[in-house]
Amino acid sequence: MEMTAFTLERRPGKPLYEQLYQQLKERIAAGSLPSGEKLPSKLRLASLLGVSKNTVETAYEQLVVEGYVEARPKRGYFVCFQDRLGYVGRPGPAASQPANPPRPAGPDIWADFHPSRIDAAYFPYTKWRKYIREALDASAADLLQIGDNQGEYALRVQIAEYLRCARGVRCGPEQIVVGAGMEVLLTQLHMLLGREVCYGLEDPGYELPRRLLMRLTDRVLPVPIDGRGLQPDILRKTSANAAYVTPSHQFPYGSVMPAGRRQELLAWAGEGPGRYILEDDYDSEFRYAGRPVDALMSMDTDGRVVYFGTFSKALIPSLRIGFMVLPPSLLERCRQNLDFYHNTVSRIDQAALARFMAEGDFERHVNRMRKVYRRKLEKTRAVLSSYGDRLTLRGDSAGFYVLLEVKNGMDEETLCRRAREAGLRVYPLSASLPAGEKGPPGILLGFAGLPEEKLEPALRRLLSAWRGGGQCPLTNVTGPEDTAGFFAR
Amino acid sequence: MEMTAFTLERRPGKPLYEQLYQQLKERIAAGSLPSGEKLPSKLRLASLLGVSKNTVETAYEQLVVEGYVEARPKRGYFVCFQDRLGYVGRPGPAASQPANPPRPAGPDIWADFHPSRIDAAYFPYTKWRKYIREALDASAADLLQIGDNQGEYALRVQIAEYLRCARGVRCGPEQIVVGAGMEVLLTQLHMLLGREVCYGLEDPGYELPRRLLMRLTDRVLPVPIDGRGLQPDILRKTSANAAYVTPSHQFPYGSVMPAGRRQELLAWAGEGPGRYILEDDYDSEFRYAGRPVDALMSMDTDGRVVYFGTFSKALIPSLRIGFMVLPPSLLERCRQNLDFYHNTVSRIDQAALARFMAEGDFERHVNRMRKVYRRKLEKTRAVLSSYGDRLTLRGDSAGFYVLLEVKNGMDEETLCRRAREAGLRVYPLSASLPAGEKGPPGILLGFAGLPEEKLEPALRRLLSAWRGGGQCPLTNVTGPEDTAGFFAR
Repeated sequence: MEMTAFTLERRPGKPLYEQLYQQLKERIAAGSLPSGEKLPSKLRLASLLGVSKNTVETAYEQLVVEGYVEARPKRGYFVCFQDRLGYVGRPGPAASQPANPPRPAGPDIWADFHPSRIDAAYFPYTKWRKYIREALDASAADLLQIGDNQGEYALRVQIAEYLRCARGVRCGPEQIVVGAGMEVLLTQLHMLLGREVCYGLEDPGYELPRRLLMRLTDRVLPVPIDGRGLQPDILRKTSANAAYVTPSHQFPYGSVMPAGRRQELLAWAGEGPGRYILEDDYDSEFRYAGRPVDALMSMDTDGRVVYFGTFSKALIPSLRIGFMVLPPSLLERCRQNLDFYHNTVSRIDQAALARFMAEGDFERHVNRMRKVYRRKLEKTRAVLSSYGDRLTLRGDSAGFYVLLEVKNGMDEETLCRRAREAGLRVYPLSASLPAGEKGPPGILLGFAGLPEEKLEPALRRLLSAWRGGGQCPLTNVTGPEDTAGFFAR
Repeated sequence: MEMTAFTLERRPGKPLYEQLYQQLKERIAAGSLPSGEKLPSKLRLASLLGVSKNTVETAYEQLVVEGYVEARPKRGYFVCFQDRLGYVGRPGPAASQPANPPRPAGPDIWADFHPSRIDAAYFPYTKWRKYIREALDASAADLLQIGDNQGEYALRVQIAEYLRCARGVRCGPEQIVVGAGMEVLLTQLHMLLGREVCYGLEDPGYELPRRLLMRLTDRVLPVPIDGRGLQPDILRKTSANAAYVTPSHQFPYGSVMPAGRRQELLAWAGEGPGRYILEDDYDSEFRYAGRPVDALMSMDTDGRVVYFGTFSKALIPSLRIGFMVLPPSLLERCRQNLDFYHNTVSRIDQAALARFMAEGDFERHVNRMRKVYRRKLEKTRAVLSSYGDRLTLRGDSAGFYVLLEVKNGMDEETLCRRAREAGLRVYPLSASLPAGEKGPPGILLGFAGLPEEKLEPALRRLLSAWRGGGQCPLTNVTGPEDTAGFFAR
């Protein structure tokens, strides 16, 4: 071994032993110190390099730990590694360009009628900050350790009370599992129900659970809906034993599942062992005519319904807090089969949300937002009515969007393109339908997310784009802030 | 219909229409208003009850929405529901007792040597609070909307830089997916790799991934380890195409996978299409002799390694922030197949952690904790050495526990029971081994979680319990605070 070629510098941040280790390792990997070669004794190398014996020993030991060198008792240190893949010096596929952060979507879109967007401007930020601070200050030591797998007990007590008052559901905190969104919770339920379970899903229906479950299992069946929701008669003919439904507000058609259909579904569940109904109650707080319809779970006397709720709509989506309510029959299985699965939500956030609910802030916020959204919905109805009978609104008493049936002779593609040319984004119904299925042209029009002052001009602009035919589409819209140009037209 | 039986009261909180709706619904459900029965006209019922026509109309419309009543044009309102399941008035299985919050585990345990517990007392709370406040204050509006599926860009930039400096891994932020723990991230990876993938796992090995994957698929194979970790020769004979390994610190034996074995594994991955190595690098920051061993991924020139990291050990477990690094070959699949899967970590926490890392606080904290844990380990070695050659320490240069081989004639059960009687909890090695497998009696002894001032007395107490035979086991220990009694003996 050529020992003079080492360059060791005394400098801060990089100890001598580490420089020596690094240079030895490079030679071993490059093959210039081949496998089987004996390294000089610690004392000899130390005196050659003018460093302490300790420095050489630490470098050798690190090479031993990493498996480049082996120490043979009473014989010394020997190289025991041979580079077979030639990884040294090769750049590696991961040396990627410094990527730029993703650009915000569509800078040429002035107004986005996304069907699931909410209005975050009313979020009670000051209150929330206060509770977060208190959780950070008060419970410091306790909240640092790993918590209960199902979530903070105080939060589960609040959720149970909320479900009793607002959704007619009677359950105890021990039935509730808090989780970082539907994706996590539905996966956990799948692990509970076992790999043999076969899912029946509303068709057409919400995309997320379908895509999630199809990545977990090949037992996912579409079950056609009618105006009352998922059809138990058809469900009964399949091998499904878990039915996913949105009874409070079916996506995308917006229908409410009537009481009779709910009972038929519960009857189906009662007919076989291990049958469950998965109730996704994603936006039930937001019903604008009459009172909210009680949850399907409130009718369940047999313990067949798993209920999914979320704070993404009623509070803010970026918190990522949802929950599921398990029927008593699944609790023991949850404790046994999922005891390794730690809770997925920060304990600080859970503690803050528990306070937020206990102090009545959550209820006040939901009541306030219901009024805000009702105003926006009424505005939407009023503006759209000027389009006469070429436009029919469906599913317009709940949630965050209306379904428009447009009969002005344009197909969905033209409707969306016309909107796009006017700086507006609307969403075609067919994107939410099974491939190939064709109804009358439909548009999912989210009204909840747009600021109130923007909603009316955006709606008028939309009608004008659909009405106007070819006359002067707006092509010079350059950014979300570019409202002056629009109003000046 | 007997109309006089309605009791409507003008009182706040419960509108008249809702009282009427509720009472009508109860009669329909109970069958006293049978299916097909015509309800009185709105005007007639209003005048009978002395309420406005509007009140009756709202009640009727709610019943229509919920499917109890149907409106037939020009004929009036008819009951259309018949209770077939008899759910009304039945208590339902969910009416559970008000459960008490779960009691903290083992009040009679004075010291718990849990092998994965960390010392949270040193967490830089003031700094963390500051960054959380700043994230809450500054970025309010932006952080309220749903974020990037893979996580906050600023955090991913910091993680990539940390991996480059500390783990020898070159990757870009676009390869990183932030997630609420190994459970979530491994599930996401499973969804990416597809249902056909077959996993080979270290045996014995870490319980969590094995249990998680076995709930997702039946393609999970144990692959025996030797002193160098998972054995590629045996792996090669199985149908596994994804190998889960802990090369930096194998659980439970604590060995480091040598460079040669790492290359053999990489060679295995290169032999077939779609083969991947899952590197779980859960505690690599904490190596107490020499420098941390570079990650297996740092050797990967072929894009075959998926790297899993966590902040649970280096920061605090209750934050629930981990991440995985995908090789470039999986990025496109991630964007296409998981675009529905929203990120699972609060954006506020992500923003705070990005600041914490950018300001150097993370590095400072890890360096500090390495010293704290090294001190504890040295204390542990010193105290245990007094037990002579009846005790051998293994895996004692990294992580949060040591593996004790005890040769004093007691079996694991006796060792644990003796400890328990002295108010101590220790963990038998066999619980982490495949059923039936028997080596010499072993104990996993976590040294990191106990406060420094408690560690030495707890260790002495343990040796005394193992030494002392039957003489006066401590049975009067009543709580974690009961240290006086112990010291007074």
